Amino acid sequence: MEKGRVLLSVTGFHPQRWHELLSAEREVVTEPAGTSDPSIAYAVVWKHKPNLLAGLPNLRAIFSIGAGVDHIFNDPGLPDVPIVKVVADNLTQYMTEYVVWRVLDHHRQGALYRQQQQKKTWHEPQQRPAGDISVGIMGLGTLGRAAASVLLSLGFCVNGWSRTSHPMDGATGYVGDSGLIPFLNATDILVVLLPLTPTTRGIVNYGLLKELRRRNGLGGAVLINAGRGRLQKDDDILRALDEGILKEASLDVFEVEPLPKTSPLWSHPKVYVTPHAAATSDPNHLVPIMLAQMAAFERGEPLQNTVDRSAGY
Amino acid sequence: MEKGRVLLSVTGFHPQRWHELLSAEREVVTEPAGTSDPSIAYAVVWKHKPNLLAGLPNLRAIFSIGAGVDHIFNDPGLPDVPIVKVVADNLTQYMTEYVVWRVLDHHRQGALYRQQQQKKTWHEPQQRPAGDISVGIMGLGTLGRAAASVLLSLGFCVNGWSRTSHPMDGATGYVGDSGLIPFLNATDILVVLLPLTPTTRGIVNYGLLKELRRRNGLGGAVLINAGRGRLQKDDDILRALDEGILKEASLDVFEVEPLPKTSPLWSHPKVYVTPHAAATSDPNHLVPIMLAQMAAFERGEPLQNTVDRSAGY
Ligand SMILES: NC(=O)c1ccc[n+]([C@@H]2O[C@H](COP(=O)([O-])OP(=O)(O)OC[C@H]3O[C@@H](n4cnc5c(N)ncnc54)[C@H](OP(=O)(O)O)[C@@H]3O)[C@@H](O)[C@H]2O)c1
Ligand SMILES: NC(=O)c1ccc[n+]([C@@H]2O[C@H](COP(=O)([O-])OP(=O)(O)OC[C@H]3O[C@@H](n4cnc5c(N)ncnc54)[C@H](OP(=O)(O)O)[C@@H]3O)[C@@H](O)[C@H]2O)c1
Repeated sequence: MEKGRVLLSVTGFHPQRWHELLSAEREVVTEPAGTSDPSIAYAVVWKHKPNLLAGLPNLRAIFSIGAGVDHIFNDPGLPDVPIVKVVADNLTQYMTEYVVWRVLDHHRQGALYRQQQQKKTWHEPQQRPAGDISVGIMGLGTLGRAAASVLLSLGFCVNGWSRTSHPMDGATGYVGDSGLIPFLNATDILVVLLPLTPTTRGIVNYGLLKELRRRNGLGGAVLINAGRGRLQKDDDILRALDEGILKEASLDVFEVEPLPKTSPLWSHPKVYVTPHAAATSDPNHLVPIMLAQMAAFERGEPLQNTVDRSAGY
Repeated sequence: MEKGRVLLSVTGFHPQRWHELLSAEREVVTEPAGTSDPSIAYAVVWKHKPNLLAGLPNLRAIFSIGAGVDHIFNDPGLPDVPIVKVVADNLTQYMTEYVVWRVLDHHRQGALYRQQQQKKTWHEPQQRPAGDISVGIMGLGTLGRAAASVLLSLGFCVNGWSRTSHPMDGATGYVGDSGLIPFLNATDILVVLLPLTPTTRGIVNYGLLKELRRRNGLGGAVLINAGRGRLQKDDDILRALDEGILKEASLDVFEVEPLPKTSPLWSHPKVYVTPHAAATSDPNHLVPIMLAQMAAFERGEPLQNTVDRSAGY
């Protein structure tokens, strides 16, 4: 197969470095030459313009710049070519850092210690060992499994929830709709690493949060969402915090991003906001993986990490 | 050997739970019947009164309630019997949690995100991956090795410094006096998990901190001390912070504890104070280990985890 040209189309940031790195091996354009440009073989995209790809007759595959592909399915004129998710050690490690950091800051009572320091109070609060706490990970895919493995090595009990069954050593697996309530009932700290699909949209709502385990002495469950903002209902999280269902929350993603200044989440004393920064896509690490996939595909090898369209991720 | 009686002697906290649990298997007293009480076989101590043990003719061993034994060597009339350090999964896991929590809070720029949230600023700062950062652990003993192993699984580069050589998979080992400067020169985040001995007292001083690696874009090195307060010079840490040698510090231990209200460390914006709470000795986990050691000793088995008096730990 002939060496294909790349269309690089992103919104929300400047793709200069992506352009440079892709250009080292391939011709790169940022606009097609007309709606039916025959020269485009691959699209590398992040929130591309709707219908941009619909008429490209020789498009072979779409590469997502992030691990999530929901931004691609927002395109009503999405052509029927393979979609490749990004899977990279670098991205996975960033997410594991974020998840472990937030789990430990909640578990080790970071907020309490920071308050005590402000008041110059020398006081050692009760502290449970990790082995007394269950972290439940919704979405036990590439990112969820990597985080689970470090949490297990810290001594936490780990539960995982996924659509299909795939056991993981040391963790307790729960599967599908029937597994959801038992999973929540056994979880003290909920970590959301699901993809956004028609099935998962809005899943982190009041009804779900109410099912989390609440044990004596822990003062409510904890929510950490680093998946996608539209998995959650911001207002339901606030309600669960106010009712003591949740003790604290760490949110990297929001229904609307950037989080509007008017959102009460910004100033809620029990909420830790990060600006969708849990795991950044670093072109230095990701472009070589994309280029290698294109070259392999042209040698006749199958694409890796393709999206299951019916599942939506 | 006959079943021995226990002297439980602590200052600084109420040993009620220790007393209850030890009493389940042995006779326990909190004061000897006179300075030469022949009935005492074991002392279980935390900062016991000087010369308390000197005249006890049948003392077989001293058990430390904490992993550090410096409090025992403070006794000028310390009898020449074996001293047993506490080694317990529970304690080791607590320390690993603390170290990984603090490393990640510095590495993932926790302070910056908390400030940004106060100002409702949505901004993603530059973030290095863990693989770009070297964590250097001073003291690669029970606690240091356990923390190193989780840090390695997070992708950090790990250096260790110890008195004698014992390689650890994945970590770079530095040994003794001649290894100290090279170790510091290769370290971005310094974690102190040394015992306090005549050799290590005051080791974390200005001269040492100045040798830490400082790289472009990182804004200074990071210090985390969870060993003992008198390993460090509080004033030297403040100076290193003010001069930008250190970017931030997490301190669980201090030259004087509780940290006096007058200490500038309390209100320093770059310092995270915890009240000697990194790894608490939990009697529920530790007493069974002590009782098992006493019983084994009486069956003729050797004591485990004894202190090397010449090394001081
Ligand atoms: N905040 C950030 O900076 C950031 C960065 C990167 C990624 N992300 C988010 O993280 C998400 C996960 O990434 P990944 O690479 O781990 O994805 P992945 O490998 O595709 O894993 C997705 C997981 O979710 C499960 N799942 C999907 N739909 C489900 C449903 N309806 N019910 C139950 N489980 C369901 C899957 O189950 P099966 O295992 O049965 O398929 C799988 O375990 C991405 O989609 C993206 O939204 C966020
Ligand atoms: N903050 C808290 O809550 C808390 C709780 C528990 C313990 N601690 C502290 O943590 C310390 C470490 O505990 P541990 O159980 O890991 O002790 P450990 O197993 O005895 O290990 C001590 C380590 O320090 C090294 N070391 C000692 N003196 C040295 C010297 N002069 N130069 C270079 N290296 C030296 C040892 O080297 P070798 O390997 O060559 O012997 C060893 O690697 C305790 O002593 C205690 O002070 C603090």
